[in-house]
Amino acid sequence: MPIERIAILGTGLIGASAGLALRSHGFAGTITGWDPSALETRIALETGAIHCAADPAIEAALDVARSSDVILLSGPVFTILEWLDRLAPELTPAQLVTDVGSVKGAICARATGKYNMLEMAGFLPGHPMAGKEVGGAANADGALFENAAWLFTETKDTQGMSPAARTLANDWRAWTARFGSRVLDLAPERHDEVCAWVSHLPQYLATALSALLEDEFPSKEEIQAIGGRALREMTRLGSSPFSMWRDIAHTNTEAVAASILALEQRLQHLRENLKTPELREEFVKANLFRNGL
Amino acid sequence: MPIERIAILGTGLIGASAGLALRSHGFAGTITGWDPSALETRIALETGAIHCAADPAIEAALDVARSSDVILLSGPVFTILEWLDRLAPELTPAQLVTDVGSVKGAICARATGKYNMLEMAGFLPGHPMAGKEVGGAANADGALFENAAWLFTETKDTQGMSPAARTLANDWRAWTARFGSRVLDLAPERHDEVCAWVSHLPQYLATALSALLEDEFPSKEEIQAIGGRALREMTRLGSSPFSMWRDIAHTNTEAVAASILALEQRLQHLRENLKTPELREEFVKANLFRNGL
Repeated sequence: MPIERIAILGTGLIGASAGLALRSHGFAGTITGWDPSALETRIALETGAIHCAADPAIEAALDVARSSDVILLSGPVFTILEWLDRLAPELTPAQLVTDVGSVKGAICARATGKYNMLEMAGFLPGHPMAGKEVGGAANADGALFENAAWLFTETKDTQGMSPAARTLANDWRAWTARFGSRVLDLAPERHDEVCAWVSHLPQYLATALSALLEDEFPSKEEIQAIGGRALREMTRLGSSPFSMWRDIAHTNTEAVAASILALEQRLQHLRENLKTPELREEFVKANLFRNGL
Repeated sequence: MPIERIAILGTGLIGASAGLALRSHGFAGTITGWDPSALETRIALETGAIHCAADPAIEAALDVARSSDVILLSGPVFTILEWLDRLAPELTPAQLVTDVGSVKGAICARATGKYNMLEMAGFLPGHPMAGKEVGGAANADGALFENAAWLFTETKDTQGMSPAARTLANDWRAWTARFGSRVLDLAPERHDEVCAWVSHLPQYLATALSALLEDEFPSKEEIQAIGGRALREMTRLGSSPFSMWRDIAHTNTEAVAASILALEQRLQHLRENLKTPELREEFVKANLFRNGL
């Protein structure tokens, strides 16, 4: 049986984009949206990301979840952890929870013992490698997931989900492929390590660079006039919202700290070799990296 | 008298883009191109960036320069320094040399006593804040300078240029405005300091990040599959050619080293505060910077 009723808990950028992607790829069922902000669900409704907007009360979200086949948890990591706790006692083995959380180790650990076992709903941990430096349903885009990876981090735990939940999980995986995503599987630990390098490090780096320049140029006139594409590009992610990245910093701390420390050391090496042949080695390696990307 | 004959010494990305910009904005005179690589002048000729390609011999460049009103020096900083030395004894006060060099302190210092005085040609130090991560005439674009700053770093020295050279300098400044650039004046020392922050730091940072990831991911499969926009954007400048950035490292060493050190310290601060309220402060500052950009 394919998915008929989807609940999107969190109709911000990613949740509303998933709704738009579902509808633009022919999803024939019903999508109900819930968000702690009534404004977000209203925008999601107006843009057609959802068919129906639930009241912002928690109890309303639980009602929606109880009557859905698939519940998509979309929001910062701690919010997803809370929903995993709240929903577990409310659902049946014929239902599937899936998510878009940026850190998978903490999320998979929290689901253990609450999902994917006898009498419990299924949980399929997922993470689309897509986003923007601005959040909210108003910035949602049904094409956001095209050519992006959609990672799933199934484990021994998820092998225990009920046949009904597995059918829903396979159907959801097929939907993400229809969105134009590259569907990939990896272990939660490896997910968190790779994401520290390719996603979290670039973000914290852009934040550090932007904050440094804010201190260095309290008046913006000069930098507005002189700064070019390089500056704008390297600081674009400086606009990213704190809430999402606080949760990542708290739940992937070790891997993030290791990647930042490695970059500090690399910058120091480059700085100490501005006038030595080592500088060429760094450019050769950087060129090589880009050629392989 | 407006400019009639322009020599572009160095028909790579910036030189050939200037030729294309001149022609697409109605320059009615003659543009002769010279480059140490015959391939570069051939491409510049074929794409219409120049009317005439000189032989790659140094003597041919001197011939072209002698018979031009304006000589545009386009290339890495050390190459521009060499041309300033070579051209000075060959030219007359009715001629103007201008450049596109990325560091202005060293270039202005080298021109002192050789230009802008009795019997000497004029020299107008310039720097368009435009570029690409790939060089060469094949990547040239007549629209490259649109909405970019074109900086001039005139000093007491340049006040000494002959009236004929001043007329040519004013005409060249008008051309850069026609290209769609924001024409701005600042002191060479301030130029080098601001560029260390807004241009050189972003470049060396992208190089360090790319080189680090090259070491971290010797096999590219995983990173190709998982990496998204953030990764591609933050490492784009990793493709930049070493030759240009070696010269900048050598001629703006102090300011570049200071900006890299400041970023190292900022990253360390962020790393040590991944789980404290300081992280929010950094995001707030970064958001503020981007809002003001």
